[in-house]
Amino acid sequence: MAQNSEKTLKVAQQAFEYFTQGLATGEWQAFFDMLTDDFTFWFPMGKFHGLNVGKERAKEFFEYVSESFNSGLKLTSLDHVTSNETTVVFEFRDEGLLLGQPYKNRVAVAFDVRGDKICGYREYFGSDGKSY
Amino acid sequence: MAQNSEKTLKVAQQAFEYFTQGLATGEWQAFFDMLTDDFTFWFPMGKFHGLNVGKERAKEFFEYVSESFNSGLKLTSLDHVTSNETTVVFEFRDEGLLLGQPYKNRVAVAFDVRGDKICGYREYFGSDGKSY
Repeated sequence: MAQNSEKTLKVAQQAFEYFTQGLATGEWQAFFDMLTDDFTFWFPMGKFHGLNVGKERAKEFFEYVSESFNSGLKLTSLDHVTSNETTVVFEFRDEGLLLGQPYKNRVAVAFDVRGDKICGYREYFGSDGKSY
Repeated sequence: MAQNSEKTLKVAQQAFEYFTQGLATGEWQAFFDMLTDDFTFWFPMGKFHGLNVGKERAKEFFEYVSESFNSGLKLTSLDHVTSNETTVVFEFRDEGLLLGQPYKNRVAVAFDVRGDKICGYREYFGSDGKSY
């Protein structure tokens, strides 16, 4: 069990690294390569609000994120990482320009791991997009 | 380390039970008794937005929550529990009436455990208060 937890954490940490690279640069391919075809994700608001199903939908979403933050969204602090055999939760802060306006948020994302891929993602907001 | 994780989980689960009882009934004393005096909490919006320090401030907050949801806020689904040696993250859904209007949300809360008490709490919203 401890071994599974370690492997899960390792896979999720790699995915999180690619995820933050994607946010910063708009280059998402390495992250997409780690998603299962049946990947699902939950997002709190806007046009992707609620449950979204499938890797294609995920590509649409993350590309939309990078269009909205076209100068990049930067991880400024990784505050907590909490994990078990299947899931890793990252609590972090980010900062950038959203459609040209200053943006800051506190975020929790949960990655569900299956094998060496990510099969699920749930995002939660801890602030209002204006402060952290 | 595994033993610490188990104890941390057990303490947090007890606190979470009192927390959900507080949300449902407005009776918060059992939950308050589990908070350290230097308890801090983060909340995503409104008058308690950001970092709040101290147990007295926490009492104010949770009583304010119960005034806003005066017929109770009910946990409808506990979806994921993720934990390590110090922190336990609960992902859940709740439902009630907020100032008389139908309210539903997806929520992640992280409890930080010290000894047999809760020393920190961070809340994140996964939806818009209207759906889950």
